[in-house]
Amino acid sequence: MTDMRSRLADIVGAANVRDGADAAEDYARDEGLTSVATRPAFVVAPGDAGETAEILKAAAETGTPVTARGSGTGLSGAAVPRADAILVSFERMNRVLEIDTENHVAVVQPGVTLRELEEKTAEHGLVYPVYPGELSGSLGGNVATNAGGMRAVRYGVTRHHVLGVEAVLATGEVIRCGGKYVKASTGYDLTQLIVGSEGTLALVTEATLKLQPRLAHQATVLAPFGDLTAVVRAVPKVVASGIGPLILEYIDAMTMGAITYTHDLQLGIPDQVRDTSQAYLVVMLENRDAERLDDDVAATGELLTALGAVDAYVLPGPSARRLIEAREQAFYTAKGAGADDVIDTVLPRAALPEFMARVQGIAQASETFVVGCGHAGDGNVHLAVFQKDADKRAKALRELFAASMELGGAISGEHGIGHAKKAYFLDLEDPAKIALMKRIKQAFDPTGVLNPGVLFD
Amino acid sequence: MTDMRSRLADIVGAANVRDGADAAEDYARDEGLTSVATRPAFVVAPGDAGETAEILKAAAETGTPVTARGSGTGLSGAAVPRADAILVSFERMNRVLEIDTENHVAVVQPGVTLRELEEKTAEHGLVYPVYPGELSGSLGGNVATNAGGMRAVRYGVTRHHVLGVEAVLATGEVIRCGGKYVKASTGYDLTQLIVGSEGTLALVTEATLKLQPRLAHQATVLAPFGDLTAVVRAVPKVVASGIGPLILEYIDAMTMGAITYTHDLQLGIPDQVRDTSQAYLVVMLENRDAERLDDDVAATGELLTALGAVDAYVLPGPSARRLIEAREQAFYTAKGAGADDVIDTVLPRAALPEFMARVQGIAQASETFVVGCGHAGDGNVHLAVFQKDADKRAKALRELFAASMELGGAISGEHGIGHAKKAYFLDLEDPAKIALMKRIKQAFDPTGVLNPGVLFD
Ligand SMILES: Cc1cc2nc3c(=O)[nH]c(=O)nc-3n(C[C@H](O)[C@H](O)[C@H](O)COP(=O)(O)OP(=O)(O)OC[C@H]3O[C@@H](n4cnc5c(N)ncnc54)[C@H](O)[C@@H]3O)c2cc1C
Ligand SMILES: Cc1cc2nc3c(=O)[nH]c(=O)nc-3n(C[C@H](O)[C@H](O)[C@H](O)COP(=O)(O)OP(=O)(O)OC[C@H]3O[C@@H](n4cnc5c(N)ncnc54)[C@H](O)[C@@H]3O)c2cc1C
Repeated sequence: MTDMRSRLADIVGAANVRDGADAAEDYARDEGLTSVATRPAFVVAPGDAGETAEILKAAAETGTPVTARGSGTGLSGAAVPRADAILVSFERMNRVLEIDTENHVAVVQPGVTLRELEEKTAEHGLVYPVYPGELSGSLGGNVATNAGGMRAVRYGVTRHHVLGVEAVLATGEVIRCGGKYVKASTGYDLTQLIVGSEGTLALVTEATLKLQPRLAHQATVLAPFGDLTAVVRAVPKVVASGIGPLILEYIDAMTMGAITYTHDLQLGIPDQVRDTSQAYLVVMLENRDAERLDDDVAATGELLTALGAVDAYVLPGPSARRLIEAREQAFYTAKGAGADDVIDTVLPRAALPEFMARVQGIAQASETFVVGCGHAGDGNVHLAVFQKDADKRAKALRELFAASMELGGAISGEHGIGHAKKAYFLDLEDPAKIALMKRIKQAFDPTGVLNPGVLFD
Repeated sequence: MTDMRSRLADIVGAANVRDGADAAEDYARDEGLTSVATRPAFVVAPGDAGETAEILKAAAETGTPVTARGSGTGLSGAAVPRADAILVSFERMNRVLEIDTENHVAVVQPGVTLRELEEKTAEHGLVYPVYPGELSGSLGGNVATNAGGMRAVRYGVTRHHVLGVEAVLATGEVIRCGGKYVKASTGYDLTQLIVGSEGTLALVTEATLKLQPRLAHQATVLAPFGDLTAVVRAVPKVVASGIGPLILEYIDAMTMGAITYTHDLQLGIPDQVRDTSQAYLVVMLENRDAERLDDDVAATGELLTALGAVDAYVLPGPSARRLIEAREQAFYTAKGAGADDVIDTVLPRAALPEFMARVQGIAQASETFVVGCGHAGDGNVHLAVFQKDADKRAKALRELFAASMELGGAISGEHGIGHAKKAYFLDLEDPAKIALMKRIKQAFDPTGVLNPGVLFD
């Protein structure tokens, strides 16, 4: 142990190694509701890829587990270290290296937060359009979880914006994959394999991200519906219209009540409409041209009413912003209300009505309370699950995931598997695929030091 | 050999196995200019995934190489079998299984051609927006090469539209990856790994493809420029404008001359402008609204003139269609003119001016004639290389690829490595990445039967 500590100090400098016991409590956990806080043996903060490589060499030689940590905002426990692990925190590698306005890319270190990138891109009239709700999350964490968020219906998720990475392998080799180009057919796409791998294949020390022109005009339409099924039925039609919404979220009445209450939000909806609405659709539009936006807003309002909305309200800018923020923080509202777990299963968007019906059945049968909201445009449902009994809860979750998979879905749309959903993943996923993934893991990490216990046992 | 033949006949039925010597000459080759035609031992046409799996089991047991074949329109020799190989032709698995209008996806068998899919999606007002130039190409081949084409600047390439695959592993296992959803964080993304793997990791027996609403209105602007550098300099500005072109191609004067001549095309450009133009930009726009399209066309014309175009012509529909078709078939024009090889290197689009300057230097120094066109919006340059001397040509190609990589590019943007560009790939690519890719190959295909000789030696 002392050997390892001094070896790490030689690599990153004594100031950048702490014993797990001395490090802040925050390093022991992420935001996952079921994560078990665990202090690692060491918290190490490398300054560059070279130092990261040396840490991995030391780990591989000694068989010491390594867990990467961005901002610890993950919801699957994937950044929670083992007690004997080196936690590699990317807090010092936090620079936006370049905003390339000609190629429309940003080159960032992994510790850069979404908030910083948002500020830097805004200065150049560009935008990194992936908006997972928690802006303190790091780009390294976003890449490793393939983070999504509300704008995915228009722009896709992290995967679609990572053009390249610099990554350190468990062998200590530093590789560069992809680059400032949007396509290639030059061998296997290692970048896409590393995206979403939850720190189990390689450590990302730099990412090249695709940017978009920042469009000047945005507007938000809020449409209350009499029932949840009508909301989710409307979703494919809004997508098919070609209006191309930036955001297309559903929020059930319970969740809307909770987030507006928590955030002291007045939406200006008549009491009587509010009282009879069981769910809401939030549609945000954007355009580079104000007039076109106005036309699209009008068309959206008409469309939503035709699809069964009780009414359609254009929210004033500040209310819209606050509603979106409240929605982004819905996780904390659920946590505050005592939710025992959250899931973010994804399925074909047209299967949402059937899935929501099954959710109600599963909830009732298992005496579990389930409410939620979701990136409806992507078929990504975020449900808060209230059930204190661990066995009953596990049974309900298994049934929810099984139902989603039966309808053509997958366990997680964006939060990842980590520790939290691993049992369900290993239980429900095709064994041939699990075996293949393990062989891929072996190809990257022969000594198995990268985030052991995440994804696989 | 007879054993294998009867075993294959047992699997797919005698009518669907041919000896290589009896099969049509076409099975011995693809469209690659440097591919060496080779008849396989057997040509087998499975009817479904189960039969495909049985073929692979037989191959793995006996160590017999297997090469998948779609339509044989590839340009890298990747579908050219070895003499001792089983060529698995997907000609019988050629059905569009579903056009799902609610989820906006198509489910296809691998032998479906782009042309068939275009017809089927049109019936539903949807479109599969990836348009690699050769519409007789199969979706299986498109997936395996990560095919691109002219519309990638707007919609991305094949990779961005493959939501899931059914694939047969060399172990004979059939797996389903992804599905009718646009995102997931549920283990490694096997779909994205299989896309672009040129038949070396798995055989694709079904693909789930993302569709888009088919927009009603299109227009094409043709802008001649005095010199090539001005054209490629204009490209990032057009992208940055936010106009969002569907197509953004450059065509040099020599190539424009050749394709208009071959296709007997009148563009209606005054002689004097044509004679002084060294390169052209072709910008195609689309919109769901005719008025918006008109405005965008006007804005594009102004922008191009401001960026140095001699003029900007809005092409009448039929001329535009014929110009795009001629551009799609530019490969055959180059072949007809005696080109000895074609390359399709990709690089950051802002590096195009510097790259084009280096191309001229390399061409002159090696006494090689190089002309071209390209998906300029993606930084994907298609060059026809005229040099009869194989050594000189190899040297020139190596220098072209090295220059592209030095400027942040990669060897192939969409055609793939196959046999044709393998020597350059193995020579110029980072050995650590090659070694990692080989370990991944091993994880999928432990007996090494899938397309040996492609990508790796
Ligand atoms: C209020 C709230 C709202 C949220 N909303 C969304 C949402 O809308 N969409 C969404 O997708 N997520 C959302 N999340 C989840 C979370 O923000 C994302 O998962 C985010 O990507 C995590 O980033 P992080 O830096 O905090 O990663 P961490 O939690 O630190 O780590 C997450 C994973 O990434 C790995 N990792 C971190 N850095 C690296 C690196 N450099 N190299 C390799 N692996 C690395 C870790 O080992 C771990 O496996 C939300 C979370 C909260 C608390
Ligand atoms: C005139 C012309 C223009 C072209 N324009 C473009 C262009 O703009 N953009 C572009 O990207 N390409 C272009 N191409 C190249 C070619 O059309 C593409 O590479 C196409 O994807 C090949 O499809 P195919 O069915 O002919 O594949 P094949 O040539 O039959 O095979 C190509 C590769 O895919 C593998 N494969 C085929 N089917 C399967 C399967 N089911 N499972 C696993 N592996 C499989 C083969 O083994 C091989 O490695 C052009 C070609 C021509 C001749």
